[in-house]
Amino acid sequence: MLELSVSDQTNAFASRGSTGEVEEGLAFQPKFDADGLITCVVTDAKSGEPLMVAHMDAEALRKTIESGDAWYFSRSRKQLWRKGESSGHAQRVVELRVDCDQDALWLKVQQQGPGACHTGRRSCFYRALPLGKAGAALEFREEERVFDPGKVYDDK
Amino acid sequence: MLELSVSDQTNAFASRGSTGEVEEGLAFQPKFDADGLITCVVTDAKSGEPLMVAHMDAEALRKTIESGDAWYFSRSRKQLWRKGESSGHAQRVVELRVDCDQDALWLKVQQQGPGACHTGRRSCFYRALPLGKAGAALEFREEERVFDPGKVYDDK
Repeated sequence: MLELSVSDQTNAFASRGSTGEVEEGLAFQPKFDADGLITCVVTDAKSGEPLMVAHMDAEALRKTIESGDAWYFSRSRKQLWRKGESSGHAQRVVELRVDCDQDALWLKVQQQGPGACHTGRRSCFYRALPLGKAGAALEFREEERVFDPGKVYDDK
Repeated sequence: MLELSVSDQTNAFASRGSTGEVEEGLAFQPKFDADGLITCVVTDAKSGEPLMVAHMDAEALRKTIESGDAWYFSRSRKQLWRKGESSGHAQRVVELRVDCDQDALWLKVQQQGPGACHTGRRSCFYRALPLGKAGAALEFREEERVFDPGKVYDDK
């Protein structure tokens, strides 16, 4: 079954093949959603921990593959964005993986600068929700900022 | 600014507050997308590596929080799904984290059984795409299956 995706119209990535081809093949056939985006999990190559979840459109994916720098598409600002272009906190991609159905990417990155999160933390995942009870409050796991977002973003 | 989300109509999670409340507060205010889903990154509590990316609707999230077992919403089957209910490969949630803007979750899990992926691998991210050249072929990082999906899913 051939499945046409947004990517077919906007970029040079391969069209989607059969389930077997997508899951067991060697052809990269990324699946973009209705908005033309694919979800990216970004982990720190050193610590292994998740830093952020972001999205790429076909152009961001192409630029990332070509340059080895992480490019994303900002859903709030509706624009292509090289990670670090405002903050200086760029991400060099050490490895790019794709999941079984090729609708999610995993980027292992060397995070430049002190952190990845725009709030000033190393990781965006700085709070945890206790399990077992409804309505529990979040608990900070990383309260301290590793940089001052006001300074980092206002100086540019 | 108050932002009404799908969650307001379907569950007991808090409505979205201001950006400051969402990013720095202790109230859990998950943001579900237009389809009523939130993206989940699932990592292995032992190895730290990403196992899969899945989605939860409000009901799946509520059940996960209450039970400590990972529940998801299958976009292809359009149904609530307890991970492992067919395969036996359940996931016990060790920690549940939320990201800065509360539109993504990170689950650290104890994976039951040999693997998380329906193709028979430990992780769904078993292939990598080489960087630096357009049109490159995927490379397997984990080719061997750790279980036989035919047996695991057909016996149930």
